[in-house]
Amino acid sequence: MSHNTFGHLFRVTTWGESHGIALGCVVDGCPPGISFTEAEIQAYLDKRKPGQSKYTTQRREPDQVKVLSGFMLQDDGVTMISTGTPISMMIENTDQRSKDYGDIARQYRPGHADYTYDVKYGIRDYRGGGRSSARETAARVAAGAIARKVVPGLVVRGALVGMGIHTIDRDRWDWDEVDNNPFFTPDPGSVDLFAGYLDGIRKAGSSIGAVVEIVAENVPAGLGAPVYGKLDQDIASYLMSINAVKGVEIGDGFEAAKLSGEENADQMRMDNHGKPIFLSNHAGGILGGISSGAPVVARFAVKPTSSILTPRQSIDADGKQVDVMTKGRHDPCVGIRAVPIGEAMVACAIADHYLRHRGQTGRI
Amino acid sequence: MSHNTFGHLFRVTTWGESHGIALGCVVDGCPPGISFTEAEIQAYLDKRKPGQSKYTTQRREPDQVKVLSGFMLQDDGVTMISTGTPISMMIENTDQRSKDYGDIARQYRPGHADYTYDVKYGIRDYRGGGRSSARETAARVAAGAIARKVVPGLVVRGALVGMGIHTIDRDRWDWDEVDNNPFFTPDPGSVDLFAGYLDGIRKAGSSIGAVVEIVAENVPAGLGAPVYGKLDQDIASYLMSINAVKGVEIGDGFEAAKLSGEENADQMRMDNHGKPIFLSNHAGGILGGISSGAPVVARFAVKPTSSILTPRQSIDADGKQVDVMTKGRHDPCVGIRAVPIGEAMVACAIADHYLRHRGQTGRI
Amino acid sequence: MSHNTFGHLFRVTTWGESHGIALGCVVDGCPPGISFTEAEIQAYLDKRKPGQSKYTTQRREPDQVKVLSGFMLQDDGVTMISTGTPISMMIENTDQRSKDYGDIARQYRPGHADYTYDVKYGIRDYRGGGRSSARETAARVAAGAIARKVVPGLVVRGALVGMGIHTIDRDRWDWDEVDNNPFFTPDPGSVDLFAGYLDGIRKAGSSIGAVVEIVAENVPAGLGAPVYGKLDQDIASYLMSINAVKGVEIGDGFEAAKLSGEENADQMRMDNHGKPIFLSNHAGGILGGISSGAPVVARFAVKPTSSILTPRQSIDADGKQVDVMTKGRHDPCVGIRAVPIGEAMVACAIADHYLRHRGQTGRI
Amino acid sequence: MSHNTFGHLFRVTTWGESHGIALGCVVDGCPPGISFTEAEIQAYLDKRKPGQSKYTTQRREPDQVKVLSGFMLQDDGVTMISTGTPISMMIENTDQRSKDYGDIARQYRPGHADYTYDVKYGIRDYRGGGRSSARETAARVAAGAIARKVVPGLVVRGALVGMGIHTIDRDRWDWDEVDNNPFFTPDPGSVDLFAGYLDGIRKAGSSIGAVVEIVAENVPAGLGAPVYGKLDQDIASYLMSINAVKGVEIGDGFEAAKLSGEENADQMRMDNHGKPIFLSNHAGGILGGISSGAPVVARFAVKPTSSILTPRQSIDADGKQVDVMTKGRHDPCVGIRAVPIGEAMVACAIADHYLRHRGQTGRI
Repeated sequence: MSHNTFGHLFRVTTWGESHGIALGCVVDGCPPGISFTEAEIQAYLDKRKPGQSKYTTQRREPDQVKVLSGFMLQDDGVTMISTGTPISMMIENTDQRSKDYGDIARQYRPGHADYTYDVKYGIRDYRGGGRSSARETAARVAAGAIARKVVPGLVVRGALVGMGIHTIDRDRWDWDEVDNNPFFTPDPGSVDLFAGYLDGIRKAGSSIGAVVEIVAENVPAGLGAPVYGKLDQDIASYLMSINAVKGVEIGDGFEAAKLSGEENADQMRMDNHGKPIFLSNHAGGILGGISSGAPVVARFAVKPTSSILTPRQSIDADGKQVDVMTKGRHDPCVGIRAVPIGEAMVACAIADHYLRHRGQTGRI
Repeated sequence: MSHNTFGHLFRVTTWGESHGIALGCVVDGCPPGISFTEAEIQAYLDKRKPGQSKYTTQRREPDQVKVLSGFMLQDDGVTMISTGTPISMMIENTDQRSKDYGDIARQYRPGHADYTYDVKYGIRDYRGGGRSSARETAARVAAGAIARKVVPGLVVRGALVGMGIHTIDRDRWDWDEVDNNPFFTPDPGSVDLFAGYLDGIRKAGSSIGAVVEIVAENVPAGLGAPVYGKLDQDIASYLMSINAVKGVEIGDGFEAAKLSGEENADQMRMDNHGKPIFLSNHAGGILGGISSGAPVVARFAVKPTSSILTPRQSIDADGKQVDVMTKGRHDPCVGIRAVPIGEAMVACAIADHYLRHRGQTGRI
Repeated sequence: MSHNTFGHLFRVTTWGESHGIALGCVVDGCPPGISFTEAEIQAYLDKRKPGQSKYTTQRREPDQVKVLSGFMLQDDGVTMISTGTPISMMIENTDQRSKDYGDIARQYRPGHADYTYDVKYGIRDYRGGGRSSARETAARVAAGAIARKVVPGLVVRGALVGMGIHTIDRDRWDWDEVDNNPFFTPDPGSVDLFAGYLDGIRKAGSSIGAVVEIVAENVPAGLGAPVYGKLDQDIASYLMSINAVKGVEIGDGFEAAKLSGEENADQMRMDNHGKPIFLSNHAGGILGGISSGAPVVARFAVKPTSSILTPRQSIDADGKQVDVMTKGRHDPCVGIRAVPIGEAMVACAIADHYLRHRGQTGRI
Repeated sequence: MSHNTFGHLFRVTTWGESHGIALGCVVDGCPPGISFTEAEIQAYLDKRKPGQSKYTTQRREPDQVKVLSGFMLQDDGVTMISTGTPISMMIENTDQRSKDYGDIARQYRPGHADYTYDVKYGIRDYRGGGRSSARETAARVAAGAIARKVVPGLVVRGALVGMGIHTIDRDRWDWDEVDNNPFFTPDPGSVDLFAGYLDGIRKAGSSIGAVVEIVAENVPAGLGAPVYGKLDQDIASYLMSINAVKGVEIGDGFEAAKLSGEENADQMRMDNHGKPIFLSNHAGGILGGISSGAPVVARFAVKPTSSILTPRQSIDADGKQVDVMTKGRHDPCVGIRAVPIGEAMVACAIADHYLRHRGQTGRI
């Protein structure tokens, strides 16, 4: 896999920096005949877009996606049909305020990639974090909108299940609630809690981490492949590639380490229609790296935003010891906007494995 | 990336089934001029080898590795120097007892990959789990022995840090202890606890999960690449590809989700030799997907062995509902033997990124 | 390798159709610190650009390249320094006359990819050939401009050495002549011959094939790798990927089949500076897939433009038998404009192997 | 693509040196349910095997293939059914006479890869050419035997069509003749000519080049993909990767450069069964990189064996000027044994594209 590409048959290459001219992606390998509109893609981008509430960065980017290739426009002037050739999508940057970053061009912000980029490349685009900015994920979300269409019936949804020391009550889980609040929490009872908690953090110029859960339904059984083409492995890889992610779980994840074999076994029966079903889903829909037909469940931990107003000890490019404070505009909890990004990444992983499975086995 | 290959410049392709003739791997892209012996590789295999204590499966495999290509043998008759061409390694199977599995050839063991392999391929080698058996990981351990040599000074060590509901006391961490006990725990105070706990589980024909931690030291700063060639992403992918792994963490992992930005920031100073140092390591040695020079720390959760003596509800290949009990020979806690496997995978990921970084930047 | 990507460490992904909104490429893996300007890239695009003489298509595209990411602009406002992140380049289409193609949207032009695209995808962008148009190669030329900078001192030049039944006189080879005539021939004595010959073909609404030779100098010895990463293999692959190319040769190529071992052997001596030299170059600078330090020489055959004014028998998408005549605007000899494209592809192949060699061996 | 791997979904990784312990390959991505026997694979290896006539090297290797993984053995004890997991195949070396090479361990044989391997790696296995020996191709032939089974009905055949200054008379082409003579020529009238010609060359301790043609029939239309996944591009890449190959052609190849658009156009009609047919096949069955359903025709030029008995000027590893004469055992015309190798490579390329096409489009 390349530096800026993911996927094998459904391949996504992204490009662009936070404060550059534009950013975008090329989706290669999309099957022909898939119908989509720019408005559909835009809807996912809008979900990820900054400046939507006081809980996300105040940078105001329209994040308007433009599809440049890989489609035939239908007579209605909006429906695009994929032709099987690369789909190039671009989002222009409009609200860069690079001067916000001028004074830290040579200072290494703790928790940021400033130091490591400089060590690696000897040069970096420091404006807004450049390529290491979460702004790059807009391109992933656009790619995910296409990926969702590749697998018939696929539904991929995400939700915030924890913020800092607080977690949701899973018994109150309601998918319809997710888009009704600025936190993407599925638990209506948690909204006020998160609001108050995050308000305090935001006003203190601080930040906090979060946990996001992604559930994919209608994933055909059989996707994935031993031993290094496992579906869970690729989901882990895709999710860990999102900025600020420090942990990934499939199904019960780390809790599985505490279980006995009897507890962990997802027993099977035949349902009333003569179809195999699982009586539980500790495995998160994946056995031996291959989808079982049960919902695919993944979770990931997002660290707190590294940009905070409290000065931290650091060094600059000359090795001088400095105190760094990050002004700029930032999300107090980047985990919130990671929800649509996580959905997109899981959708892309499933789409890729769907095509790979069809290629090798012809069984779809 | 292919179905059975991992890595980009340091590429490993494994092959072989649990009860087939042999298993092995091809290591492609190893730099020339690296010195190794079969005995060195064997030492790592011996650490992973079954039948070493009553806490691991009683299958007795010598796991004798044979290096078939990619080296020039030195005059001492044991030292091999890599030539830059593919290093092929093979381990013959000797102690297959396939009859143990005969009665479950058509039954789907809960938690195993039996059902998903059948759905995917329509045919599978059911003997000992075939390709989905953890026996495949012997080949990875052999590859890891080579990988460790690729990066000068690299030290990769692993330890068991949790078993079921018990975790170690990190204040008693002693690397020297790890090889002194059958659990690879670094905490001398935990040995008796784990022994008693696992004895009970083993005698009950049950099994239990575990958590393993891998620490890589002397990793040069600058390895990894944005955005889909992140070092942490590849480590997550590699570790999640190990059988039974359900979660992966880098640095503080899921704990990071609970931290504030102030708590999570690894502050920097210059040390007495004028070198940048980090005052903490919440990040686990990786920032923006690129190594920082601090130790790389990863953890992974291993689910309990799915093979247990208690019957579980399942179905067979004809859709008939059956109760399945797995006789055979099994590890009550596969997480133990995952320690050397995890080490090998992290070593391979770092070796690959070392070569990639050198390739793109020439900075090593 | 993906459908629309080439290269391993120096990777190029292109996108866009002939009559779409735009076309472009993403160059991933370019080393950091490389200096370039849009004007430098434009110079190569201008060489390939249509409408430059009566011997190329009269479509008039400015082919203005815009670099969108992967660089830091220097204070002079024109010099760009690569940052090691993806370099995205875009060329907008301006002179599409899609109506020219309307009547053949469902007819299969002999020699074109119309039929095979329809069979493969069931849908295609028929306007100007869509993705199968040579217009796509503008993106490759832009990528090649960057590739040339990756290998210090590298010089890659191309020339037309044959047109239809005529070939140049190699004794008159003069690199300086190449840019002095509309055919890129290095033989001043061939200009009038080619002019008269092609005039006749053009006026008859016909077309003719050509042979192009590319020579790369200052290629370090050691690039390439056995067995499927051979430099000559990749050059063959890259050149054969150019539209209308039907044959590729390295060094003596097909003539080598007629030679004896004595004739074909490039003998070696030490030169006056104690450096190994070859006394001849039948091998075209590559032995065992690895560059020898001698100039790399490759040639490729370009078939005649398939668009001709004489009606040809064919079928349409409904299986009806039709006679097809291609109006539109076309090159009577596409081989001419293939010269800068061939240069770009060879430069990209060498750049990729340069980085790969450095990665694996650290010997550069 | 890696150094020693080819293919995307049907992937082949080869390993092993000429005079090492063994050589082999891992075929990854083979569809499940394919039936084969070791004897079938062996038949192709026997065709390539040395020591079959006085016209090939007198090294006598049984080249006995052993399949180590990736199959379930049927009750007949010989039929293997692929399981979709990696098929590992091994051929042990038995007749190494490394002492033949002892005196040239540090001398660079002109035309061989000795010098370039040393420059690249700083170390090489000089015995029998090591990894650069054509012996490696035995593994490819084994892989090709599997590949032929992947595409239903696929027939891939090869023939020698030229040796040195002599070419066959294509009007006498008879596929049945190919296996009746030691040259794989399809022209019965050329056998005596080639015999006498090659006898003279052999007795003089010299060698000669050859041209080989491969024809693949029953290739479904639609395989291949624009722009860098072209079927012809990959065939060119695969064939150029064979030792000593210096040129590759598709269809009319270099002759196409001499044709007019009218001459080169393969016109289409509907046949009596209402199926599209081509009235000629200048294109060699590939248009725009995608198979058209017409036979795929490729040709490649093989240079003369570099090992000859006449001393040639060269240098050694210390830069000393020496005269080199290659004793050992060699083919006077390596092009002969390249016939089954070329067949295998074309079969592998088609199998890979068959799976890729099925994956992306689901149209097979």
